[in-house]
Amino acid sequence: MAIAQLRRITEADIRALRKIVGPEHVRVGNEISDDYARDELARERAFPEVLVEPGCTREVSDVMRYAYENDLSVTPRGTGTGLCGGAVATHGGIMLTTTRMNRILEIDQECLMATVEPGVVLLDFQKHVEKMGLFYPPDPGEKSATLGGNVSTNAGGMRAVKYGVTRGYVRGMEVVLPNGEVTEFGGKLSKNSSGYGLMHLMVGSEGTLGIITKIVLRLIPLPKKRVSILVPFASLEEAIRTVPKILMSRTNPTAIEFMQQDAIHAYERSMGKPFPHNEAPAYLLLQFDGNSESELESAYQAAAETCLAQGALDALIADTSDRHSAVWDPRGAFLEALKAVSELEMADAVVPPHLIPEFVTFCDSLQERFGAKVITFGHAGDGNCHIHILREDMDDETWEQTYPQVMDEIYRKCHELGGQVSGEHGIGIAKRPYLHRWAGDINLELMRRIKNSFDPKGILNPGKVV
Amino acid sequence: MAIAQLRRITEADIRALRKIVGPEHVRVGNEISDDYARDELARERAFPEVLVEPGCTREVSDVMRYAYENDLSVTPRGTGTGLCGGAVATHGGIMLTTTRMNRILEIDQECLMATVEPGVVLLDFQKHVEKMGLFYPPDPGEKSATLGGNVSTNAGGMRAVKYGVTRGYVRGMEVVLPNGEVTEFGGKLSKNSSGYGLMHLMVGSEGTLGIITKIVLRLIPLPKKRVSILVPFASLEEAIRTVPKILMSRTNPTAIEFMQQDAIHAYERSMGKPFPHNEAPAYLLLQFDGNSESELESAYQAAAETCLAQGALDALIADTSDRHSAVWDPRGAFLEALKAVSELEMADAVVPPHLIPEFVTFCDSLQERFGAKVITFGHAGDGNCHIHILREDMDDETWEQTYPQVMDEIYRKCHELGGQVSGEHGIGIAKRPYLHRWAGDINLELMRRIKNSFDPKGILNPGKVV
Repeated sequence: MAIAQLRRITEADIRALRKIVGPEHVRVGNEISDDYARDELARERAFPEVLVEPGCTREVSDVMRYAYENDLSVTPRGTGTGLCGGAVATHGGIMLTTTRMNRILEIDQECLMATVEPGVVLLDFQKHVEKMGLFYPPDPGEKSATLGGNVSTNAGGMRAVKYGVTRGYVRGMEVVLPNGEVTEFGGKLSKNSSGYGLMHLMVGSEGTLGIITKIVLRLIPLPKKRVSILVPFASLEEAIRTVPKILMSRTNPTAIEFMQQDAIHAYERSMGKPFPHNEAPAYLLLQFDGNSESELESAYQAAAETCLAQGALDALIADTSDRHSAVWDPRGAFLEALKAVSELEMADAVVPPHLIPEFVTFCDSLQERFGAKVITFGHAGDGNCHIHILREDMDDETWEQTYPQVMDEIYRKCHELGGQVSGEHGIGIAKRPYLHRWAGDINLELMRRIKNSFDPKGILNPGKVV
Repeated sequence: MAIAQLRRITEADIRALRKIVGPEHVRVGNEISDDYARDELARERAFPEVLVEPGCTREVSDVMRYAYENDLSVTPRGTGTGLCGGAVATHGGIMLTTTRMNRILEIDQECLMATVEPGVVLLDFQKHVEKMGLFYPPDPGEKSATLGGNVSTNAGGMRAVKYGVTRGYVRGMEVVLPNGEVTEFGGKLSKNSSGYGLMHLMVGSEGTLGIITKIVLRLIPLPKKRVSILVPFASLEEAIRTVPKILMSRTNPTAIEFMQQDAIHAYERSMGKPFPHNEAPAYLLLQFDGNSESELESAYQAAAETCLAQGALDALIADTSDRHSAVWDPRGAFLEALKAVSELEMADAVVPPHLIPEFVTFCDSLQERFGAKVITFGHAGDGNCHIHILREDMDDETWEQTYPQVMDEIYRKCHELGGQVSGEHGIGIAKRPYLHRWAGDINLELMRRIKNSFDPKGILNPGKVV
């Protein structure tokens, strides 16, 4: 790949780009706000040389063709809510944002599928379809992300236990390839065995293979009711040991989250609000949804009984909207709360679900070894752990030495347990060294060849993933 | 790709292969039965020069390394139940069967995942896990297929409406690459966003990218009860128009099949057994499963009422095991019944579900135009239609002229409706011309590059898919 040959943007390039997308949709120099120099991983910062905001597929195609013919790098970006630096223009060049392409093109109520542009914001989409009695199950924590970003990282979220991750809801897409060619993968289809899974290769490829300009997404009927249960336990081991029993109890939970007291205390201190229960060392937070009151009641009661039989200290039912918010709003704000108290680095490792206690106990043990606070919470139902290393009052040198060592240990343990580097955040820049260490030379070489198959000049989101 | 340079098998090759897998697991010449010269698409026939039956990953790796170093083609095969010639050794060379690798290695009841070898037969696996109170939802019609074959074609089946296709149940795999290297994709994991979806590229790649030697599959708790409803309609249009209403009725059907009277009559004539109802022009066949009797009852009754409100002529409930078999056994035997009365060619096209009536009406209209009987049935819930062109008493010349023309028309219409060549059978040899015509040059070129990324010498299953 020819990354080294990518050249700097010239005045002529800017004139050409203005011609393609309109002068009002091209920004340079001081016109580019600081937001575009980073994503939510604040550590990696770089300004693009030029910011372009195309409004349609044709414009995306023309921008890409121009970039391809002129050896310019292109970094695609949605709303920049990524956590791994995947949308940072580390090589300068062109940043192409999809935020103007934010139309919901169709809600097909016969096929239960939506066709959207990539810049549609998740929360807007969820609200839109729910008003029509429909439901888009993937529910990653960051609601202001774009759907294009969600597809590009194969975003997961809390409802994955029952409903699976974003990949399971992508049916088709329109893609602009690095050379500007426009193609389609999949369609408004529920099944497809027609050659290699190009669409599935795009899912989770973090804008390195092509730019998604349209997405066909599967919808389901909106469940009529939901109920949550907060279940305190005397230890994390007991809590996690209960998870397979819940999964086998035929109660079909929507979400099974785990948290320890340290995360709750951090939330309460940081946000100045109480969590509904804070005296137990560990918690499971379960959610159920369904269409019949009685069905749902028997499900959550059976799950609560399962928990109590496994030694749970209590089972607090949240069956109103207010009570539901009282537990889920804090869970959704944990990361924000931690960020408010300290600079931090985070891992998003995924392990076989039953090995969470071993993994989390190991992560906790790193606190003493390295002198950095480590707080872990996450998705007990699917083995995806969010591990946060807090800087607190560490000086620069100590921090720069400490967090990479802690990360190394986390990923080494994750690999030993049969896990993978990222469950739902993706690789971007931040996780690249760990992917490269643990994915194995064979898989990395295959990934490089695939990158080269789509992007032989290496102009699209260079330096990310592979 | 260097397919042209693949060479013929020599005595030295046979000696080398005997050394790798043991002499008793290598067959040549007359020792190779006719079964290995074809799959269920009887039209494509070719004998491999040598048949090897490795017993473990190491042996598969050694066979592949030997083939790679010696420019020999390798055609992987499970039980040969494919419908597109994907497992026929069109280039001679080595046929590698996975049927000896048929061990269920682990059922992890904590993670609800199974680890199996590729040669495990679907029916054996389903029975094995069901005895443990677990359930493997994908249910393609051909129960004697191997799980490796199911993954390699991304097999669908009738329960896809509620549970999705094989892809959704694959969590991890061990793969032997064409050069003999052994690698792993995914793991015993529920979420994964760690680089490109190599595992998803393997799913549906029909043995052209690597040989799957282990599979981690997701399981769910076995539903306690199931009920079916057979619903006669005055026309196919009315039947299909009812499908979105059923999908939106929050009754969550497991399967929604459609059939017309011609398929039922063909079944009755061919098998000499009556179908429970045969007087209506069109039928929907619904299945529901669940864990509570009352929940299930309210679901199927609501669905039946939805059908009746849409003009259904009746709704026949099958709530016992015997009654269930009385409708589903015939549905499962339709293809066999058609094959018993006539040589046939079949298409497995998939269209947006609400366009089934237009597509099937078009396919029916081809009968008059081309003078060949066309019988269509399939999966109304997911738009996957099985279209059968019956030869009946046509002479060779007429048949060879007729069926390709009918196929051309079918796929042209399918493409016009936004459909794809195959919903669940795959491409193999039989559908290659249609994939090549309708997938578009851009997508085909990407597929060729991906093939080349995995198999630069083109030794693995040459002539299939791309």
